[in-house]
Amino acid sequence: MTNRAALSRLSLNQRTTASWSLPEAVQGCVDAGLGAIGIWREQLAEVGLDEACRLVAESGLRVSSLCRGGFFTTADPAEAATAESRNREAIEEAAALKAATLVLVAGGLPPDDRDLEAARDRAARAIERLVPYAHELGVNLGIEPMNPIYAADRGVISTLAQALDIAERFDAADVGVVVDTFHLWWEPGVSEQLLRAEERIVSYQICDWITPLPADTLLARGMMGDGHVDFTAFTRSVAVAGYRGDVEVEIFNAELWAAPPAEVVDTMVERYLRLVQPYLAEWQMTQSRKQ
Amino acid sequence: MTNRAALSRLSLNQRTTASWSLPEAVQGCVDAGLGAIGIWREQLAEVGLDEACRLVAESGLRVSSLCRGGFFTTADPAEAATAESRNREAIEEAAALKAATLVLVAGGLPPDDRDLEAARDRAARAIERLVPYAHELGVNLGIEPMNPIYAADRGVISTLAQALDIAERFDAADVGVVVDTFHLWWEPGVSEQLLRAEERIVSYQICDWITPLPADTLLARGMMGDGHVDFTAFTRSVAVAGYRGDVEVEIFNAELWAAPPAEVVDTMVERYLRLVQPYLAEWQMTQSRKQ
Repeated sequence: MTNRAALSRLSLNQRTTASWSLPEAVQGCVDAGLGAIGIWREQLAEVGLDEACRLVAESGLRVSSLCRGGFFTTADPAEAATAESRNREAIEEAAALKAATLVLVAGGLPPDDRDLEAARDRAARAIERLVPYAHELGVNLGIEPMNPIYAADRGVISTLAQALDIAERFDAADVGVVVDTFHLWWEPGVSEQLLRAEERIVSYQICDWITPLPADTLLARGMMGDGHVDFTAFTRSVAVAGYRGDVEVEIFNAELWAAPPAEVVDTMVERYLRLVQPYLAEWQMTQSRKQ
Repeated sequence: MTNRAALSRLSLNQRTTASWSLPEAVQGCVDAGLGAIGIWREQLAEVGLDEACRLVAESGLRVSSLCRGGFFTTADPAEAATAESRNREAIEEAAALKAATLVLVAGGLPPDDRDLEAARDRAARAIERLVPYAHELGVNLGIEPMNPIYAADRGVISTLAQALDIAERFDAADVGVVVDTFHLWWEPGVSEQLLRAEERIVSYQICDWITPLPADTLLARGMMGDGHVDFTAFTRSVAVAGYRGDVEVEIFNAELWAAPPAEVVDTMVERYLRLVQPYLAEWQMTQSRKQ
């Protein structure tokens, strides 16, 4: 397999190279021979949607995800309306960019609110309200379950099983799940949940769980191979579940952010080729051997 | 209700007042009017088992738990034999102290080992090997599921559902589960799992999940009321499940450890009486109203 073919499903999520603007990140992906990019709304806003669409089209890259919508756990009606309007904008951007999914992060507990179940329920109902508009614009809403380390302050949806319980209330074309190794590597029975998810897996994001956990838990993610995640087993499960989309590297890490972005991309390519890519097609090989 | 009656089920886990020796902690519990103490093996070793038993008997305190056994995820046969022998000693100590349970923490992934499923399986088989001896000595083995934040380096058993899957292979008198709010507050469907657990709940440990998470995640626990845990709802679920045992305050926190231990106990008593104790008997009141 040529290097370019081997990298055809690799995607750079912009947060991995946080110092790059969108034009720089697009160029970085092209230079490295990647197939796709995961775009963040903050950096999209800097260049504007039209220019972003032009850049992406010219580059030939797929947009593996738009990050991110969600943050709709508030119990305040005015705040909920604001959140809904922001999410409708995000849906419009995802449609224009032809993103494989709009990543939805539920949001944490509102201030001084300890009713986790109610917050989870509000998140599910907020998704429900967005589905018709997403359907109209042909955008898939990808629910991202987050590691319980973030249950209080970032994402109240904590497991793939729980994300699927919500997603399955809707058509698979409208609502899927985002599978991130950092968030899900520990989940008991996760391979069964991946099988259950099937075509609802709309994004496969990878990074490692490292110990000791860095002091700022929001920046606690590591480069694949630096931590405890079994990328072979996890990737096989994702492949067996039928996922054929892009593999997005999303790493929030202060040390990586301090390094030259192109070097980070080089490392990420090397790790991907060694730890992830060989197992993406294993299922197909197993199948063809059987035939 | 008198203060003493209200505190009859409150237990001080020694790690909350880490600077106190066992004699000091016993005296601290007596002075505060608590009903029980949770003892750590490290501080037990300083005075010896006989002296510890004498101290405890004289104090009139119950031993709500002995902390802790476990740490048996190793794949190395010699290390596994050492771990088993340490755990047999811990069973003997728990028997002598008449502890309500010996808390078992599974242990993390062995160095350079990423096979989480195999580590979990080894933990379950290590428990299985201990059951006959625990049964013989009348000791209950309490499996403690740990927050996924510790899945890599401390405890590979991550949810109450998973702990129960293991515990239910044995008699409830031999193997139970330790329910700790810090570890389980986020678990989807935890109230159903508590109902499922019923008489297998052999310890109810409380402390809060605080944000931002302190830099050392091992010391990330907060005093009840300082964080995001809904102690009313959680305690009600534990009571409805039928738990009638002690409520142990176990807080690993550098700031608390720097404070005078007796003041920490005062704060813990105040928070317990306000946030936890009123909901322990709610189920009984509901029942008696029905009759």
